[in-house]
Amino acid sequence: MSRSIDLAVIPGDGIGQEVVAEGLKVLSAALPQDVKLETREYDFGARRYHATGETLTDGDLDQLRQHDAILLGAIGDPSVPSGVLERGFLLKLRFAFDHHVNLRPSKLLPGVATPLAGDPRIDFVVVREGTEGPYTGNGGTIRKGTEHEVATEVSVNTAFGVERVVRDAFARAQARPRKKLTLVHKNNVLTFAGHLWTDVFTRVAEEYPEVTTEYIHVDAATIYLVTQPERFDVIVTDNLFGDIITDLAAAVSGGIGVAASGNINPSGAFPSMFEPVHGSAPDIAGQGKADPTATVLSVALLLRHLGHEAEADRIDAAVSADLAERGALPARTTAEIGDALAVRVAG
Amino acid sequence: MSRSIDLAVIPGDGIGQEVVAEGLKVLSAALPQDVKLETREYDFGARRYHATGETLTDGDLDQLRQHDAILLGAIGDPSVPSGVLERGFLLKLRFAFDHHVNLRPSKLLPGVATPLAGDPRIDFVVVREGTEGPYTGNGGTIRKGTEHEVATEVSVNTAFGVERVVRDAFARAQARPRKKLTLVHKNNVLTFAGHLWTDVFTRVAEEYPEVTTEYIHVDAATIYLVTQPERFDVIVTDNLFGDIITDLAAAVSGGIGVAASGNINPSGAFPSMFEPVHGSAPDIAGQGKADPTATVLSVALLLRHLGHEAEADRIDAAVSADLAERGALPARTTAEIGDALAVRVAG
Ligand SMILES: CC(C)[C@H](C(=O)O)[C@@H](O)C(=O)O
Ligand SMILES: CC(C)[C@H](C(=O)O)[C@@H](O)C(=O)O
Repeated sequence: MSRSIDLAVIPGDGIGQEVVAEGLKVLSAALPQDVKLETREYDFGARRYHATGETLTDGDLDQLRQHDAILLGAIGDPSVPSGVLERGFLLKLRFAFDHHVNLRPSKLLPGVATPLAGDPRIDFVVVREGTEGPYTGNGGTIRKGTEHEVATEVSVNTAFGVERVVRDAFARAQARPRKKLTLVHKNNVLTFAGHLWTDVFTRVAEEYPEVTTEYIHVDAATIYLVTQPERFDVIVTDNLFGDIITDLAAAVSGGIGVAASGNINPSGAFPSMFEPVHGSAPDIAGQGKADPTATVLSVALLLRHLGHEAEADRIDAAVSADLAERGALPARTTAEIGDALAVRVAG
Repeated sequence: MSRSIDLAVIPGDGIGQEVVAEGLKVLSAALPQDVKLETREYDFGARRYHATGETLTDGDLDQLRQHDAILLGAIGDPSVPSGVLERGFLLKLRFAFDHHVNLRPSKLLPGVATPLAGDPRIDFVVVREGTEGPYTGNGGTIRKGTEHEVATEVSVNTAFGVERVVRDAFARAQARPRKKLTLVHKNNVLTFAGHLWTDVFTRVAEEYPEVTTEYIHVDAATIYLVTQPERFDVIVTDNLFGDIITDLAAAVSGGIGVAASGNINPSGAFPSMFEPVHGSAPDIAGQGKADPTATVLSVALLLRHLGHEAEADRIDAAVSADLAERGALPARTTAEIGDALAVRVAG
């Protein structure tokens, strides 16, 4: 546990600015007096791209890597062609800093609305691989724009990359009361990658005899996420499947307004990055309508990553208490929710 | 509309046998006296594989292609290594017969339970590409079983393949009252394939000025499928995304017990194949517990494909009526449900 935190802050586009302000407010309220918090803000995203044509330069990466961690709001704007900021900023950063553990907890808290009927119990965490799979940018296009165009996307999977994330997931499962780990893939169709994932998973499982394991195809996993979400404890999966099922997981466990994530480099060789799962939501930007809860919960993940467990627990508890009362309250602005959370955390 | 139907029947594994028997029962009941139905049963699947090591030979394909259409129950058994029957039979058949339109309607019928709260209106159809994308079997493994293993999967997308399925989807959207078509992809990350899909979609859209179009990323699509399924009318998407979202779509619109599908070759160059979305469910096989409804609805799709619209409508109506009454009835066996449907269809 560090006595100082040097944080890179990337508010980004749309509602990013607003939610990050509240995240920082709650972070300050949570930290003890003797922990020094330094922040430096970086202006990345659509504005920078339009002004300079740059998304994330080598110089930017050099600066970012000096920090202990990164807090990001959201990147993306309809004025920028699809893919430019995603590949040029978000994914570039994940790959450059080797964020191979993409951690996405899903917990349906009391008082929170879910689109599911009944009273589902949802409390699991997805460990999504973050640096391989179909996200590597491998592939290409020939005869572009003609009737003979062929476009390929190559999913790259290495024993090294799969094993480290599978190990991380087993360790997390081992540390949870239920000790259950589900591998989600599509090994009956994507047999090359599927066999690698399944073999590694089976091999590492031998080292964790207390962890119950299961394998589920990604298509079936989407069914279970809506019919029996209580089935899941920890899920480990590839980059693309993780992208898809964590949005669904967020939807059933309270919506993307409360879904947090960490892009983690467990070795600490590079700073890890924490961000809400939601995007920049340009339609509601600047109106104080955005829910900062997902960012605040991402701050809790950040604190936990830096060893500040007690402070992270206090934030999680404040969010639970706030969410439990929301139904009874009139709608609040982004800042009002942030203020209320900061008061609870400090109190 | 043909005055005779020459049908290949592949009951397959597990509950496949039971549900196909009921599908044929209802088919016979639906057809007018003067339409001659001939069926020939083929024993494909796990039994054949264990006995001969074969999944689907060139000779099998020659025989199958003589038929007007194919009705399949389910293929797959835990005794066969994952991927063998999927790649060696199901996908081989889809590719050999160029089943590029994989049609999967989702309609929540009155009286049918859904895991979603509220009273969602669900009535859309997914047109899933069936012969390209990550399903081509392209890819490979090097240094298998070592710590330096690399496994790749290549998603192959051609202008030819994308355009024909996009055209099919536009035509279907144009023929429906709401005339809305959603493209689901991940074009912000899978930019090579994503651009091809998006470009073709945008170009074909110009020929269908009455069709409202939208684009949604696959991750966001899973959110909308549980929070606002009424948003969708026709969805067109790639092979893998279609696999994933149609299982979710089935889950929210009554479960895979009622989800039908067609693997269609619109040109008629090869017979199309119709099958329930569910698998062989070995845990309940042979006990009369399987719901034959998905197979019966697949028979309706088959009839529609062969031009027997009125008979297909009668089957759909019989299923709707049966489902509406289920809540009030004691549980029935597979055959009892088939009998009840046959009586309604004939009546
Ligand atoms: C914006 C996009 C690149 C990103 C992803 O696909 O990983 C997002 O959907 C996410 O889940 O963080
Ligand atoms: C069994 C498998 C090969 C198949 C697929 O992935 O297409 C199935 O999931 C389906 O949706 O028909």
